[in-house]
Amino acid sequence: MLRIALDAMGGDNAPRNEIEGAIAALRFANNRFEVAVVGQERLLKSEISRHNIGSLNLTIVHADDVVTMNDAPAAILRTKPKSSIVRALELHSERVVDAFVSGGNTGAVMAASTLLLGRIPGVSRPTIGSNFPNETGVCIVLDVGASVDCKPHHLYEFAVMGSIYAAQIFNCEHPKVGLLSVGEEDAKGNEVSLAALELLRNSNLNFIGNVEGRDILKGKAEVIVCDGFTGNIVLKFAESVPSLLKKRIKDYANQSLPKKIMAALISRPLKKILGGDMDYQQHGGVPLLGVNGVTIIGHGRSTPLAFRNMILRAEEMALKKVNERIANALRPSIKAT
Amino acid sequence: MLRIALDAMGGDNAPRNEIEGAIAALRFANNRFEVAVVGQERLLKSEISRHNIGSLNLTIVHADDVVTMNDAPAAILRTKPKSSIVRALELHSERVVDAFVSGGNTGAVMAASTLLLGRIPGVSRPTIGSNFPNETGVCIVLDVGASVDCKPHHLYEFAVMGSIYAAQIFNCEHPKVGLLSVGEEDAKGNEVSLAALELLRNSNLNFIGNVEGRDILKGKAEVIVCDGFTGNIVLKFAESVPSLLKKRIKDYANQSLPKKIMAALISRPLKKILGGDMDYQQHGGVPLLGVNGVTIIGHGRSTPLAFRNMILRAEEMALKKVNERIANALRPSIKAT
Repeated sequence: MLRIALDAMGGDNAPRNEIEGAIAALRFANNRFEVAVVGQERLLKSEISRHNIGSLNLTIVHADDVVTMNDAPAAILRTKPKSSIVRALELHSERVVDAFVSGGNTGAVMAASTLLLGRIPGVSRPTIGSNFPNETGVCIVLDVGASVDCKPHHLYEFAVMGSIYAAQIFNCEHPKVGLLSVGEEDAKGNEVSLAALELLRNSNLNFIGNVEGRDILKGKAEVIVCDGFTGNIVLKFAESVPSLLKKRIKDYANQSLPKKIMAALISRPLKKILGGDMDYQQHGGVPLLGVNGVTIIGHGRSTPLAFRNMILRAEEMALKKVNERIANALRPSIKAT
Repeated sequence: MLRIALDAMGGDNAPRNEIEGAIAALRFANNRFEVAVVGQERLLKSEISRHNIGSLNLTIVHADDVVTMNDAPAAILRTKPKSSIVRALELHSERVVDAFVSGGNTGAVMAASTLLLGRIPGVSRPTIGSNFPNETGVCIVLDVGASVDCKPHHLYEFAVMGSIYAAQIFNCEHPKVGLLSVGEEDAKGNEVSLAALELLRNSNLNFIGNVEGRDILKGKAEVIVCDGFTGNIVLKFAESVPSLLKKRIKDYANQSLPKKIMAALISRPLKKILGGDMDYQQHGGVPLLGVNGVTIIGHGRSTPLAFRNMILRAEEMALKKVNERIANALRPSIKAT
């Protein structure tokens, strides 16, 4: 039976949303895996007692300490060795559990995952990929913040990892890979992207060349590769669009009574229209690809639904052997070593 | 009387939209400036004859040739010396006209402007700034594509030029300047942005530090500075959001008859809500800052309204002496030379 460790202390509403999410995931999955909720035992027990969990495979693993948003990410192994993040990742590195999910300090989760799980051989840098829903379905954009200064071969590795992720998780046989740039022509790009284009053109990926900012939502490719500086900025920009729309609708409603009525009328269908779209919780977290294990990172403000989805995504990544496939694809040739 | 040269051959619907835009601008401005429409005389005459222009200050300047989207930008002075872009910019460099507006090949307009007008002393690289409407009003993001690989001091110069633009055009006394990055803390960023942060912290700009992708639409700063690679990708991403929304509304409408009715009902107010927002034509073009003249660049698909707005913006930039102010702000000290 697959086991997933959930950092129960990470999110803004911890451990409430984490526990609800874990229970929802187990119910949804008919108890086919086990969830270890990691955190302060008393707190978790009291939270769990609010639910009727019956025979659900929910186990508490005690961890004294909690990583906060103010903790320096790279130092938590030293400063917070008894934290829920470190404890859960230790269990994963010892293969007691098969995957790890957290809504905590992203930098800390990333750093601790890399240090405790190690990198997959052939991977220079782990990468965070984020799902972007678009006009044709969904794509993964990577990197979105793990690696802000990239070399061309890092972008190549991101493309390989993203392709495997898209093939397995989006069930897309030969995912199209695009390189994010400032124009479609091969001559368009910055120094790093131009050199990466060469590598990608010579790869055996289904590489379609440069794509532009507008092509993310158009759905031109299932995998879109960029440095983590650009990717992070685009991701956060995208996440802020619904808030602008809400503000505009509010301003519109305040103009007159008929407009107020119209705005009220619009608000529900609009929510549905935007719902699947820019609502991160439907997707639930982003994978940290390239580490020797399964790490799914969520927003601090993740809802129970988001945690449920993260746990299910973690199970899927473990079952579909995404990491073994990455290791095979990036295995260095004998000559190269 | 101020004179503005309009490349009448640049846009996708040239010269129709250009001529309509020029006439609308002159009518709106009560004929207080002169517009020279530059392009193939016969074509322009026939287009103008469709309107009753009365005594509007509309002059035709003949130019044999047309720059297309396929022309190599850097070469047009050599390959298309008789094009409307080159002709109009020659008039501007000779100070026969005071500003230049085009909806043509952006790269060509940029390259020819830089070559024919030259740079303002103290400016290393001209930059394209784009208006982003946001929750509190509007901000200028720069660079959005003129300079894809930037050094820290380029970002500093963009900040100075953007501040002057915002002060003059947004009528904002001490515009807040933010540096686009992956986190608010000073330690967050890539190599270039971290070094630029130092320069900006030591400047006399109203610098508020790093801002994130989400802060563009939140309206945290009036001026947001980044390299042209990142800026171009964010701009094109933003421009593609309305198309995704349209697609979602269409999909929603196709689900059932009641939903179709609801979609029809919301489409008009929604258009109004989004209208001022992500609709580039309201803003009409982007300035090329740092050249020794006024160049306003528009989309190929610019509507007559967009051209009207671009002409009015060009007038405003000339009247408010944006370039003189940039030259003063970036004038090197005697020591530095």
